[in-house]
Amino acid sequence: VNLILLEPFECDAEGRVSLSDARAQHIRNVLRAVVGQVIRIGLINGSPGEGTIVAADDRVVTLACRFEEAPPPRPRIDLLLALPRPKVMRRLWAQLAALGVGRIILTNAERVERPYFDTHVLAPETYRPLLVEGLQQARDTHLPAVSIHRQFRVLVEDDLETLCGSARRLVAQPGVARDVRDALRDPGNRRVLVAIGPEGGWNAFELRLLETHGFCGVGMGPRTLRSDTACIAMLAIVADALAARR
Amino acid sequence: VNLILLEPFECDAEGRVSLSDARAQHIRNVLRAVVGQVIRIGLINGSPGEGTIVAADDRVVTLACRFEEAPPPRPRIDLLLALPRPKVMRRLWAQLAALGVGRIILTNAERVERPYFDTHVLAPETYRPLLVEGLQQARDTHLPAVSIHRQFRVLVEDDLETLCGSARRLVAQPGVARDVRDALRDPGNRRVLVAIGPEGGWNAFELRLLETHGFCGVGMGPRTLRSDTACIAMLAIVADALAARR
Repeated sequence: VNLILLEPFECDAEGRVSLSDARAQHIRNVLRAVVGQVIRIGLINGSPGEGTIVAADDRVVTLACRFEEAPPPRPRIDLLLALPRPKVMRRLWAQLAALGVGRIILTNAERVERPYFDTHVLAPETYRPLLVEGLQQARDTHLPAVSIHRQFRVLVEDDLETLCGSARRLVAQPGVARDVRDALRDPGNRRVLVAIGPEGGWNAFELRLLETHGFCGVGMGPRTLRSDTACIAMLAIVADALAARR
Repeated sequence: VNLILLEPFECDAEGRVSLSDARAQHIRNVLRAVVGQVIRIGLINGSPGEGTIVAADDRVVTLACRFEEAPPPRPRIDLLLALPRPKVMRRLWAQLAALGVGRIILTNAERVERPYFDTHVLAPETYRPLLVEGLQQARDTHLPAVSIHRQFRVLVEDDLETLCGSARRLVAQPGVARDVRDALRDPGNRRVLVAIGPEGGWNAFELRLLETHGFCGVGMGPRTLRSDTACIAMLAIVADALAARR
């Protein structure tokens, strides 16, 4: 944890917050912070800042908070992901938030098994703390927006326009020669939406639908990766390509 | 599984192999392969090829194997990793093999906890099947060489020369502006060795030792990643940079 995130409603009118949960434990036991010490904090979907410890006992840690004027820039990358199996998805939440995505769009596909949609891994009470964990790791405050879509075609034909209308759209495809930098030669200030298929890949219909809706195929070499490894690899390569264009 | 890997000793003089383990189950239940069908196979540390199913019952699947002349090229990237905690390391093995590394060098560092070295996650009988799983996912045959080093200084000062003497050496460091492509502007045919530190980073001594032994600091932007996420991200970016130079 490199930043302690606070919910906006946790701060009182004087900018004080009293913590008694895992964050208080972390401040006491890992940061070994004492009264007077200053630690890095941030408001979820808001500004980062500093918290001065004004009181601490076995139960409660109280911070006096000061926040910077502006929140950090929102990550420029969004992710469209064919829902992986629950065990894999559970491990991904924190890593996606740490890598930095504005939006996580989970979708059905032919090769996604239906029961995957009925697990508690997709319940906000499960994934929100995992996303927060990833943000605290990466020192970000922007909680990715999450949406879950059981109809791939409706998502691509109707919903994507609203969710990420002007974004550059890439779909990772094994065997495609065009690399990410090539596809992002002139991104301007547009966001980038990256699609990652299910284990076994998109079927021909799904791939055609993506292509007719502006998704440009990009490759990551000849190796077939597991869906979670592919997500992390692809997000890293896209972030690296965007950083190089600045 | 996109390739069934075989140990060289499993094939008899006529190039036949009889499987009765998880691979046989996979061929029967997932590939739903029947007699006469051809599946992708490979020899560990050898050539890929094709296996024709010549017999199959509830217990045993027998393949007639034909191998290509040459094995695929060995991955050009090696990894020097400060040993993460066992749970994280367990998850990494297959992903590292899938991403493609020639060598995995695990090391101690100040911020690595000693008990991490005494877990069965570092036993070949634990990690070898996980590496094979990653290779079968990525359709590779090159099993990464693994070595474990309890003395960081001895590793860097003495052993690295033997393990990867002529490799370009990079160390991922938060906050460094130079990016991977910049550092790999003229890699020629040399291998690339990537160092990833422990949670909390290398200490000042360790970083200086790496730098005086030819490691060039490279950044991946302002976000601090967990050690496993950083490994995957870094290996993906380096592979992407090397592919672009071809």
